[in-house]
Amino acid sequence: MSGVTHPKGFRAAGVTAGLKSSGGKDLALVVNTGPRFDAANVFTANRCQANPVLWSKEVAKDGVVRAVVLNSGGANCYTGPEGFQTTHATAERVAEHLAIGAGDVVVCSTGLIGLLNDRAALLAGVDAAAAALDADGGDAAAHAIMTTDTVAKQVVVEGGGWSIGGMAKGAGMLAPALATMLVVITTDAVVPAADLDKALRAATRVSFDRLDSDGCMSTNDTVSLLASGASGIAPSLEEFTARLADACTDLALQLLADAEGADHSIAITTVHAASEDDAVEVSRSVARSNLFKAAIFGKDANWGRILASVGTTGAAFDPADLDVAINGVWVCRNSGIGEDRDLVSLEERDVTVTVDLKAGEASATVWTNDLTHAYVHENSAYSS
Amino acid sequence: MSGVTHPKGFRAAGVTAGLKSSGGKDLALVVNTGPRFDAANVFTANRCQANPVLWSKEVAKDGVVRAVVLNSGGANCYTGPEGFQTTHATAERVAEHLAIGAGDVVVCSTGLIGLLNDRAALLAGVDAAAAALDADGGDAAAHAIMTTDTVAKQVVVEGGGWSIGGMAKGAGMLAPALATMLVVITTDAVVPAADLDKALRAATRVSFDRLDSDGCMSTNDTVSLLASGASGIAPSLEEFTARLADACTDLALQLLADAEGADHSIAITTVHAASEDDAVEVSRSVARSNLFKAAIFGKDANWGRILASVGTTGAAFDPADLDVAINGVWVCRNSGIGEDRDLVSLEERDVTVTVDLKAGEASATVWTNDLTHAYVHENSAYSS
Repeated sequence: MSGVTHPKGFRAAGVTAGLKSSGGKDLALVVNTGPRFDAANVFTANRCQANPVLWSKEVAKDGVVRAVVLNSGGANCYTGPEGFQTTHATAERVAEHLAIGAGDVVVCSTGLIGLLNDRAALLAGVDAAAAALDADGGDAAAHAIMTTDTVAKQVVVEGGGWSIGGMAKGAGMLAPALATMLVVITTDAVVPAADLDKALRAATRVSFDRLDSDGCMSTNDTVSLLASGASGIAPSLEEFTARLADACTDLALQLLADAEGADHSIAITTVHAASEDDAVEVSRSVARSNLFKAAIFGKDANWGRILASVGTTGAAFDPADLDVAINGVWVCRNSGIGEDRDLVSLEERDVTVTVDLKAGEASATVWTNDLTHAYVHENSAYSS
Repeated sequence: MSGVTHPKGFRAAGVTAGLKSSGGKDLALVVNTGPRFDAANVFTANRCQANPVLWSKEVAKDGVVRAVVLNSGGANCYTGPEGFQTTHATAERVAEHLAIGAGDVVVCSTGLIGLLNDRAALLAGVDAAAAALDADGGDAAAHAIMTTDTVAKQVVVEGGGWSIGGMAKGAGMLAPALATMLVVITTDAVVPAADLDKALRAATRVSFDRLDSDGCMSTNDTVSLLASGASGIAPSLEEFTARLADACTDLALQLLADAEGADHSIAITTVHAASEDDAVEVSRSVARSNLFKAAIFGKDANWGRILASVGTTGAAFDPADLDVAINGVWVCRNSGIGEDRDLVSLEERDVTVTVDLKAGEASATVWTNDLTHAYVHENSAYSS
C-alpha cells in the first residue's frame, strides 16, 4: 500500500538512522513536489510541548509546508534549547537536500521523552532519506514512524480524479512514549491552505479528537496535511472535508485496533443528547472511567459503572430516566435493571456502548480501549 | 477504640443482618442522645445518586439528625421505587425503636449496585442494632460498615473539654462497589447546625475532596456530622473547624492507606501556584494520569509523565520553567533534566510528588494511589 504517496505530487522514504535500539527503520521523509504547497496542521493541546511541536507550529503559520520529516526512537521532549537546536538542524538538513527553506519543513518526533536525540545520527538519516525519496515510498515511511505499533497504519480515499493518502502511528496505551500520535495526510486535490485548515479541523474533531484511549494527552501529537494540487481538480470544500473525515476516521480506528495492552476496542455512542457537546462529554466521561474499562476487560456488562460516569457530567438528562445498551442489549432501562446482562457477550474485540439521554436529537461517539493487566505492565515495566 | 461513641451523647451498634455473603457484621446504627441534635451532611456530587442519598438529602435539610443507619452488603443504587421504599422502611423502623421521626434518620448503604437489598433482613437487622445500642458501640459500628476494607477506620480528636469521634469506610480502588465512601462524625461540642455546615464544608474541602484514588465518583458517598452538645462547651467556629479538618484528614489518609490493589499512597503537592484552585487542578490532573500511576507502581521516577499532566491544565505557569521533585529529589528543573532520577527510591508505600509552578504563593495537596495489577484484577474479576 502506498499511503502518503498514493496521491500525485508526493515522494517519500523510510530509512534506518540508528535512533531505535531495535535497528529498525526510524526516520521518514514526505515531500510535496507540487505544483501547490498548501498545508494545514493541528498539534497537541498540551501546554507542555516537545521541541518539534514548538518548531512546527511556527512552520505551519503561513499555510505552506513542502516536507515533513519524522523520527521514531526519541521524542525530543523536555530536552531544552539543545533539543530545539536538534529539531532546527534536522529541518535545515532537509531543506538543503530539497533546495527549499527550513521554514517550510515540519518536524515530528516520537519515542522516549527527557532524552536528547543523537543529532549526528539524525542528520545522517536525513541524508539517507533524501537519497531514497521515491514516488512509491509511502509504505517505507509508514514503517519508519512505528514505535510499539505492531502494524503500519495507512489509508487511501478516492475522490473523483483526486485522492487522499495517509499514515499514522501511535494512540493511547502505547507505552512508554506518552501515546504520541503522528499523522501525515497527503492529497493531490487543489485546496487552498485556508480551506485545508477548515477541513482538517472539522475532520479531526470527529475522528482523532474522539479517540480517548487512556485519557493521557501527549506532548508531541501532530497531524500534518499537505496538498500538492497535482490532480488539477478542485473539489468542493464540503466534499473534500467529508473524504478527509473518512480518511481520519479510518486511521483513528486503526490506532484503536492496535493500542497495546488492550483486549477490546470500545465505541461509546451517546444518543438523544440536547447538543453534540453534551453527547461528547457523556461519551468521554465513560471512556475515562477506569472502573468501566476494567469491567470490560473482565467481560462484565457493568452498566452501573456507566451510569455513575454519566452522572459526573453536566449534560442535560434526567438521572432517573437513562437507558444503556452494551453490544445492542438494553441492560439498563429508566436508570434501573433492564434486559438480562447475561445476554451480552464480550468475547469479541469490538464493543459498543449506547447511552440514551432522552434529551434531544444530537449524538456522538468516543472510542476507547479496556484497562488490562497488559496496560499496567507495559506502562510500569518500562521507563520513559 | 470507641470512634463515634467517644464524644458524650452517642450510642452505637454494629450487628449482622445477613446482607453480606461473608456473614460478617453489616448493619450499623449511630444515635445522638442529645441534648442537642444539630447536624450537617455532604453527599456525592454525582447526579446519578443511590436511593439512600436521595432520602438522606431530604432528611438533612432542616439541620436536625438524630440517628444514622448504615448497611454494607448492598448499595441500593439503580433499584428504582422499590429500592427507595426499602430505604424509607429502614428509616421508619429506626424511628419506631427510638420514638423519633423517620425524617430525622439518615440512611447510608454500600455494596453492590443494581441489586435490591433484602428488606426483611435489613429491618430485622435494625431491630437487632436497636437492641444492641451501647455507649461503647463505636467499634462494632465501624466494623459493620466495612466492605473490602481490611481494617476499620476510626478517629478521635480532643478539643478542650469536648471531642470529635469518627468512622469511615471505603475510598477509591475498593472494588467492586464504585468506591463508596461513608463517614459518620460525632461531637459533643455545642455547635448550631448552620455552623456545623460551614465547618463540615470547609473540612471536607481539604480532606475527602482531595482524595482522588481513581477518579471515579461514587453514587453513595455520604459524610454525616452529628453534634450532641453533651459537653456543654461551645468552641469558636474557627477552633471547631480546625479540629474537624484534623479528624477528616486523619480518616482520609486511613482510607488512602487501605485502598485495595494499591502498592503506594501518593501525596501530590503543588506549590507556588497563583491560586489554591490552580494548585488543586494541577495536583488532581497528575493524580488522574494512568501513565503516571502505573509508573509509580513500576517504581519509575517518571517526571515526564508528571509534566505532561500538568500541561493539560489551565493553571498559570510557564511550560518551560517547571520543577518537579519525587520523594524530595528534584528530578526535573526548568522543565528539563534535573537531579539523577536514580537517587529516588520508591520502595516505601508513601510517595511525595512536588510540582513547583513558580507562579504565586498558593499550594494544595491531592492524594492518590498507584495503578497496579491488583487494581485491574479486583475491578475486572468481580461483577457489581
